[in-house]
Amino acid sequence: MSGEALSKARLRLWLRLLKASGEIEAELRRRLRAEFDTTLPRFDVMAALARAPEGLRMSEISERLRVSNGNITGIVDRLAQEGLATRIAVPGDRRAMLAKLTPHGQAVFAEQAAAHEGWIDDLLAGLGAEELVAMSGHLERLIPHIEKERA
Amino acid sequence: MSGEALSKARLRLWLRLLKASGEIEAELRRRLRAEFDTTLPRFDVMAALARAPEGLRMSEISERLRVSNGNITGIVDRLAQEGLATRIAVPGDRRAMLAKLTPHGQAVFAEQAAAHEGWIDDLLAGLGAEELVAMSGHLERLIPHIEKERA
Repeated sequence: MSGEALSKARLRLWLRLLKASGEIEAELRRRLRAEFDTTLPRFDVMAALARAPEGLRMSEISERLRVSNGNITGIVDRLAQEGLATRIAVPGDRRAMLAKLTPHGQAVFAEQAAAHEGWIDDLLAGLGAEELVAMSGHLERLIPHIEKERA
Repeated sequence: MSGEALSKARLRLWLRLLKASGEIEAELRRRLRAEFDTTLPRFDVMAALARAPEGLRMSEISERLRVSNGNITGIVDRLAQEGLATRIAVPGDRRAMLAKLTPHGQAVFAEQAAAHEGWIDDLLAGLGAEELVAMSGHLERLIPHIEKERA
């Protein structure tokens, strides 16, 4: 492939990546709203907390999700008001707090995560097993390259 | 692959798709800001106008980009103030206006589009020609499936 053809193929791939991920994300937002009256940022915060049963600081949640601290604090406040999360003091640091899911929050998130996995099954059902594995492998090689370009 | 293994493979692919597209988009935003003092929505509006030399209504721009009309109007207002776009009346419809790039806007956008294509070249250079074509083909088959699920 000539350099120019390669450039055009890369641009085409980028537009398709953007379209596929944008459409999947829009559909996940719609289903989270319709079926659980929740949002994607809130689902993502609960997912981060579900993976860290010992609790996370606000700054740790925001690093994992690349969302600003202020937004995370607002989401955790709402989760706490609804009995889905709780805040506990960090031993040895009087000003820091850890957020954790409550048992009720864990149960609610487990239900949402199972539905989310089913939606991804539906949305990606257009690809066979071999295609899935090939594409996952390509992305696995691509991501460190992107990160090197960004550094 | 068992149904469960397939589900996990789909979830993994989705997380990688999201990560790759999110990181490429963040880097494009950063470079547009740093090199041209512009934003991705503004670049996208100029790209839509560049592809429609006869001009577009605000509603047509917003359909193409899936952005609200209000935001598009604000962006076109700014482009007009800076001499990059102009508004012309639609023959036979006194209330409707078409936005078009000015010759200066076309020249500015051509420069930005060339840089953007070079950035995509850099960011996707981690994939060889065969991988590019394979992944593009997978996405081309996946996108109509996603759209059917959303309908």
